[in-house]
Amino acid sequence: MKAPQQNLRTPGPTPCPDEVLDGMSQQMINHRGPEFRQLIDGLTDKLSRIYMTSGKVYILTASGTGALEAAVVNTLSPDDKVLAVSIGYFGDRFADIARIYRTNVTKLEFEWGTPADPEVIRKALQDDPGIKAVLVTHNETSTGITNDLESIAKVVKGEFGKLLLVDAVSSLGCVPLNTDQWQCDVVSTASQKGLMVPPGLSFASVSDRGWEAYKESTMPRYYLDLGSAHRYLDRGQNPFTPNVALLYGLDVALDMMLDEGMESVYQRHHEIADFTRAGVQKLGLTLLADDAHASDTVTAINNPEGVDCGALVEMMRTEHSVVLAAGQGPLQGKIFRIGHMGLVTREDIQEVLNALETSLTKLGYQLVPSN
Amino acid sequence: MKAPQQNLRTPGPTPCPDEVLDGMSQQMINHRGPEFRQLIDGLTDKLSRIYMTSGKVYILTASGTGALEAAVVNTLSPDDKVLAVSIGYFGDRFADIARIYRTNVTKLEFEWGTPADPEVIRKALQDDPGIKAVLVTHNETSTGITNDLESIAKVVKGEFGKLLLVDAVSSLGCVPLNTDQWQCDVVSTASQKGLMVPPGLSFASVSDRGWEAYKESTMPRYYLDLGSAHRYLDRGQNPFTPNVALLYGLDVALDMMLDEGMESVYQRHHEIADFTRAGVQKLGLTLLADDAHASDTVTAINNPEGVDCGALVEMMRTEHSVVLAAGQGPLQGKIFRIGHMGLVTREDIQEVLNALETSLTKLGYQLVPSN
Repeated sequence: MKAPQQNLRTPGPTPCPDEVLDGMSQQMINHRGPEFRQLIDGLTDKLSRIYMTSGKVYILTASGTGALEAAVVNTLSPDDKVLAVSIGYFGDRFADIARIYRTNVTKLEFEWGTPADPEVIRKALQDDPGIKAVLVTHNETSTGITNDLESIAKVVKGEFGKLLLVDAVSSLGCVPLNTDQWQCDVVSTASQKGLMVPPGLSFASVSDRGWEAYKESTMPRYYLDLGSAHRYLDRGQNPFTPNVALLYGLDVALDMMLDEGMESVYQRHHEIADFTRAGVQKLGLTLLADDAHASDTVTAINNPEGVDCGALVEMMRTEHSVVLAAGQGPLQGKIFRIGHMGLVTREDIQEVLNALETSLTKLGYQLVPSN
Repeated sequence: MKAPQQNLRTPGPTPCPDEVLDGMSQQMINHRGPEFRQLIDGLTDKLSRIYMTSGKVYILTASGTGALEAAVVNTLSPDDKVLAVSIGYFGDRFADIARIYRTNVTKLEFEWGTPADPEVIRKALQDDPGIKAVLVTHNETSTGITNDLESIAKVVKGEFGKLLLVDAVSSLGCVPLNTDQWQCDVVSTASQKGLMVPPGLSFASVSDRGWEAYKESTMPRYYLDLGSAHRYLDRGQNPFTPNVALLYGLDVALDMMLDEGMESVYQRHHEIADFTRAGVQKLGLTLLADDAHASDTVTAINNPEGVDCGALVEMMRTEHSVVLAAGQGPLQGKIFRIGHMGLVTREDIQEVLNALETSLTKLGYQLVPSN
């Protein structure tokens, strides 16, 4: 099939730079040979720099959810007490994975559109000293909220010394995440967001404490076994035939990011997010998140009263080739979302804003610009 | 990194046609949108034709091993009695997965380099009526042996009505595998062999009987849950962000295969295998497999006496840019392997034979051509 020309502004997959797409389309190599070793050793090193960890980052041929499942099955055992902090759809997913693997999950839910409160997490850990691990979403894609992971980690690690498993799928490589300094035990992310590579790869770091938990864990695991990943990586390999093409693309993307400098990458994300939020508000629309917790990677916009959200998203796509995401779960029909992570320019966002203005007017909504 | 120009003759990953690599390098699309629905619906239909099934084929963003694990965790429960037929490294792997998920595995091993004997399987099923499922490798990549799956299925399904889970990673799309007629309950395969796509996608079909087993299965599963895959496929989606790039490539590859016609694809594999075996024997080398069971996708050659197998494979790569595979497990140092599935011409194989002749001579081995 021929892919359409679009302004793809879903919060993943995100558009890939031409250099990444070109890099990907090279011929295969032997995944047990010296060329592959060179590739994966280089990638591991670059990923560790972006993760800000002195440890290794393991590459899985899987979607981000595979790396979330890897965090659970490599560190926990059935009946382990788990505190699953959820502020939206992907927090719920992380909790579901832990529950399906028969850990004893206490879900700590915060209203969709608000961040997790470290105070409430402290209280929950005080109330149940038996809790072994805390699951946290760094950036909740479904609501456009970034949790204050550093403060949460200070409680979970600094005060209580619990295992901290982090879903960083829509944050890593876009906003700062200091894996080692914040003492995150497993940080899971994926290729198709800030890393600007097609979906199909995911990643997990494991702290020393995480490896201790691995040794005690009795979960069944084979394909997602990070111990195998570790052993094979020592000889420059993956346990299973890896996605060579996406690894080529990843190599290009990581070089682009590191060449730019991560501080600049973070700053760029912050500026484009500001530009998006200001532009949306200028149209007279309101944001789901308050400024203090609004995500630098995805913006959730409250659906203007009287507008059919589905019709708006559909009109944006069919008449303007702008692809937005609708709301998920309880926010279905109540919000729509603009992704602005990885490859995105002000022009891309301006195009979205212009198309929004035209579409909303056409749908009969009276815009009240705030300028 | 820049991929080298090589004659890649490992039994996977296999070289990809330029058309596939070009198709892959298109821009991303929304995996919850109508364009994706069109893509995955078309792919599902094409895969079903190649699988020879009226059922659906589910696409996983994972290596082949992920699809083997999916077969186990979606149909079995802990303590289920499983007969794991193994004729080599990948038969052992399938058994390991079942064991790790705490099924009660009886391993039925055949000497590496020989096929499974349906008579012996019949005996094993007679001896233990409690066996629920049989795991079989269709084509054993580590030894270059193709099991007579049709005869095995007649025993397992026709005579005993057991669940039949098939590893078809290095057979499907290369040699005939009639999923429905042979009553295979789950058939797992991957993208990087006969399907001529980079590694990173795997596939599983599920029979009606397989879905019955799914309902009874109590295994924990999330990322590899085929029930989720089924529900999402009904709306033209994957449960998790799928590998859009590889799906583009797969679409091109499946069209190429179906346009050629599967009978012609199978015949082509048979002819190139014959050509390979004849050429190797002409050099005075001997084959691990006898003619009746030699694989049409990979040929295992006995290491000539006195030759260091590792040095040979290394010399082939560094001096001739021909990439072969060494032996695995007990056959390490005893055989080397030439892959000839998917994209391969007589010229590619002739180049291998020429390089083999030169290298063996240089390594001091006295070739005794047979003609």
